[in-house]
Amino acid sequence: MLEPSLDLYGETFDRVDGLLRELLAKSRARYAMIIDRKGFVLAHQRALWAPKPPSLDSFATLIASNYSANRAIAQLFGEEGFKETVQQGAEVGTYLEELGDEALLVTVFDNSAQLGRVKMATKLAAAEIRAVIEASQEAPPAVEFDKEWSDSTTALLDGLFGTRER
Amino acid sequence: MLEPSLDLYGETFDRVDGLLRELLAKSRARYAMIIDRKGFVLAHQRALWAPKPPSLDSFATLIASNYSANRAIAQLFGEEGFKETVQQGAEVGTYLEELGDEALLVTVFDNSAQLGRVKMATKLAAAEIRAVIEASQEAPPAVEFDKEWSDSTTALLDGLFGTRER
Repeated sequence: MLEPSLDLYGETFDRVDGLLRELLAKSRARYAMIIDRKGFVLAHQRALWAPKPPSLDSFATLIASNYSANRAIAQLFGEEGFKETVQQGAEVGTYLEELGDEALLVTVFDNSAQLGRVKMATKLAAAEIRAVIEASQEAPPAVEFDKEWSDSTTALLDGLFGTRER
Repeated sequence: MLEPSLDLYGETFDRVDGLLRELLAKSRARYAMIIDRKGFVLAHQRALWAPKPPSLDSFATLIASNYSANRAIAQLFGEEGFKETVQQGAEVGTYLEELGDEALLVTVFDNSAQLGRVKMATKLAAAEIRAVIEASQEAPPAVEFDKEWSDSTTALLDGLFGTRER
């Protein structure tokens, strides 16, 4: 099964989530998200004033696949990849920065944000997020299938298919 | 057959070629090229000091296909496409600007060039190139298969396969 190459949970997730919120406040960008290079959304934040974003999963998949394609271009010039990418449309732009080998930090901004500010804030956030992820030694949360889980699942199934004959 | 959607020839080509040379001198970039959106190289220039470029055809094909993929991202946000794209690696970067509906202007630079300068010079060159292409009313050169062409081709074929029995 295709699984994210990096997981964010517990305290690490909370800290990264806080850094994304800070990034939006500083840069006045619309959305900030962390995706892994396979196209999974690991964390995302949206500015309060920003319009409803498009499907984040489609966006993440497109970004990740383009990122790989761009590496092919960088490799023509003997580079391993492009460390940052800015794309600017008439209204909306994206800024992308690498987060180590596994993930990407993407900021989406519009004309109300200054590109310089977005770049600065994203670079800063990327450095902090990299540090948080590297420092994280937290074990993944254990999944327990206890009595409560079993009872609620049985009730759910009974609700869907009718109670079992006993 | 796959053919370029835009052709540059005669005086138009010479003027565009001159603009590319000017762009390199102003921006201190390594290479400048015009490609159409299908990935054909329409014109290119290389700075005298620049190392031998990688295969321009591969580069143009990758750039054009990524450009199309990036349009999908822009369209998620209700944009028609991204008007400019900057990619920065450790040493080499690329700057891409649209030239109307058919073509793209790509500048490749390294650390010896300033990004601001590259952007300014490329934007200026793009505006001038757009004007030259739009003003061009030149008819495509007529291809004539005359006696001389026929004789030289026959001689070439005879050289390859031996003279024909008469």
